[in-house]
Amino acid sequence: MNLKIALLGGDGVGPEVLAQAVKCLQSVEVTFNHHFTFSPALVGATAIDQTGNPLPDETLEICKNSNAVLFGAIGDPKYDNDPIAKVRPEQGLLKLRKELGLFSNIRPVRVYPSLIDRSPLKKEIISGVDFTIYRELTGGIYFGEKKLNEKGTVASDLCEYSEKEISRMAHLAFKAAKNRRKKVTLIDKANVLETSRLWRKVVTRIGESYPEIELDFLFVDNAAMQMILNPAQFDVILTNNMFGDIISDEASVITGSIGLLASASVGTDFAMFEPIHGSYPQATGLDIANPIAAILSAAMLIEHHGLNEEAQAIYMAVENAIINNVVTSDLNPDSRFGTDYVGNYIANSIV
Amino acid sequence: MNLKIALLGGDGVGPEVLAQAVKCLQSVEVTFNHHFTFSPALVGATAIDQTGNPLPDETLEICKNSNAVLFGAIGDPKYDNDPIAKVRPEQGLLKLRKELGLFSNIRPVRVYPSLIDRSPLKKEIISGVDFTIYRELTGGIYFGEKKLNEKGTVASDLCEYSEKEISRMAHLAFKAAKNRRKKVTLIDKANVLETSRLWRKVVTRIGESYPEIELDFLFVDNAAMQMILNPAQFDVILTNNMFGDIISDEASVITGSIGLLASASVGTDFAMFEPIHGSYPQATGLDIANPIAAILSAAMLIEHHGLNEEAQAIYMAVENAIINNVVTSDLNPDSRFGTDYVGNYIANSIV
Ligand SMILES: CC(C)[C@H](C(=O)O)[C@@H](O)C(=O)O
Ligand SMILES: CC(C)[C@H](C(=O)O)[C@@H](O)C(=O)O
Repeated sequence: MNLKIALLGGDGVGPEVLAQAVKCLQSVEVTFNHHFTFSPALVGATAIDQTGNPLPDETLEICKNSNAVLFGAIGDPKYDNDPIAKVRPEQGLLKLRKELGLFSNIRPVRVYPSLIDRSPLKKEIISGVDFTIYRELTGGIYFGEKKLNEKGTVASDLCEYSEKEISRMAHLAFKAAKNRRKKVTLIDKANVLETSRLWRKVVTRIGESYPEIELDFLFVDNAAMQMILNPAQFDVILTNNMFGDIISDEASVITGSIGLLASASVGTDFAMFEPIHGSYPQATGLDIANPIAAILSAAMLIEHHGLNEEAQAIYMAVENAIINNVVTSDLNPDSRFGTDYVGNYIANSIV
Repeated sequence: MNLKIALLGGDGVGPEVLAQAVKCLQSVEVTFNHHFTFSPALVGATAIDQTGNPLPDETLEICKNSNAVLFGAIGDPKYDNDPIAKVRPEQGLLKLRKELGLFSNIRPVRVYPSLIDRSPLKKEIISGVDFTIYRELTGGIYFGEKKLNEKGTVASDLCEYSEKEISRMAHLAFKAAKNRRKKVTLIDKANVLETSRLWRKVVTRIGESYPEIELDFLFVDNAAMQMILNPAQFDVILTNNMFGDIISDEASVITGSIGLLASASVGTDFAMFEPIHGSYPQATGLDIANPIAAILSAAMLIEHHGLNEEAQAIYMAVENAIINNVVTSDLNPDSRFGTDYVGNYIANSIV
């Protein structure tokens, strides 16, 4: 198979971890006889520094002309505490999601038995945890109208959802549950928010056409507790953009390191794959960032294009590295292994 | 001292746990020679069932004529999954907050050494945790304009904040930090939301007049992780209404039981005290709900009115019950003790 892959390393450790993912994909090319073309492009703070624009037109063009986008990370502290910055790295990511129509963000959370002791949570609580979060990604308060009055004393953000935006997400979640443990949990705040009530209404109605799937509801505050008290109860979680951002980052701690979690952002025409961790600026260039999330993102990418056996080979190479303790220091404080070493080790064990 | 206390038991286990708090206050009356008058009033689903209104005028009147409100819990599942219900129990609570101007919600989170093993988190992580959350309570997306188009296919909620709403909260948080470990962490989503950028701007400016206080910023998604990875880093957390709802419920799991946490909702003229747990409808009438959160809420109430020694006596009586394992089954699965027994035990050890 030929695949054109846009490589958007972005900021901080993004490019470093993406480099490891590329090695693994190259290993897949050789082992399974495929042909992948990689097109690097600028995004985020790096793109602002070089072009003034967090998502240059050229980058968007490259993405649209590729079969998939592999994304690193975004964000730079120099913009974070500047409330009046007009251009921000995150705008690049948000615009990319919108322009490519990537309306669903899919984040699998699974505990590796050999890493169970790395979790801040007790073993009894997390053993067997295996769920997937479906987060709406191009609507809600992220993209609603933003206002600041002239004096700069009153600000607002509008959270808006349409039936259509909700129903396409709901179908994805119910379909995913069919191949899993057959349970969907909608996380919302229907006791306060009008948008949440619309989510509940639409999801309930669509749920009727999936009679084999159990549909459960949790208020987001309760969900934030349940995620820690009893995460094994979840199978497929469905939620809006803002709640999904919070709940999925919270969920990432269960596994022991956010450096293990990959995500897919999928729309009708395009798909993008990225680690869920951020740009981790303090680690940039230190060869300490965990490359596994980026490598697993690459696996999700080829799986998305039907290369199941090849994706399995990556998953197994990752498990092999974990079992043999060839991991970065986030997973083993005594580790002597850096980003590059772990990346090579995994790439070399793809067979 | 004479205090008039409005008693709003509300729904589910609310009235049961409040009854234990009243016993403790009565014990304080006798021991310390004060005079408390209790005025019960209806609120929530119970109030809807009896009057059609989740916050009857009479209840509001009673609250306004009291020195403080002691609140139980609110919410009934029969309303939760009914997206088109016109009247909801939660409206009673929200209206009460608004009418009494209770703009700040203060939630202390502290780990009891003798309960450290009850937490789902590992001991190393939670030992020494002691922070307080300052959540804005009468603004933001909770109270912004809500819309649903005629066809019922598009819904929206407006999140709005003014400089004034933010600055009065910021002052409270900085003042609290002065008497604590001198650190304020603002939780927001300034990389996406206009309102969060206004929060960051205003809080940063106000922080300049508290030079001895360290001011830190965390994006809410990262905060949801840090709460589990390293909660000991927090001293005073400052955040908006929606993020505060999520983060404080998440934080409650650290202590091992949400049944331990009390909160104060304070405005310029009025103050209300309530457990942070919900109405726990499945437990209603079973004599199993933990009364400690309600009892600690009563302690916060009298402390608010300057009865420090008296509040200390309640805190000590609660610790005594915990140390002697006279607790409900949420804290000890083998417990033989019910709500009422634990309430009596604590009330009787107030000396
Ligand atoms: C960088 C930021 C805008 C982004 C988001 O909030 O969506 C990130 O936190 C994520 O979850 O991908
Ligand atoms: C009952 C509900 C409206 C309320 C809220 O969201 O504020 C509750 O969760 C709380 O935190 O007090």
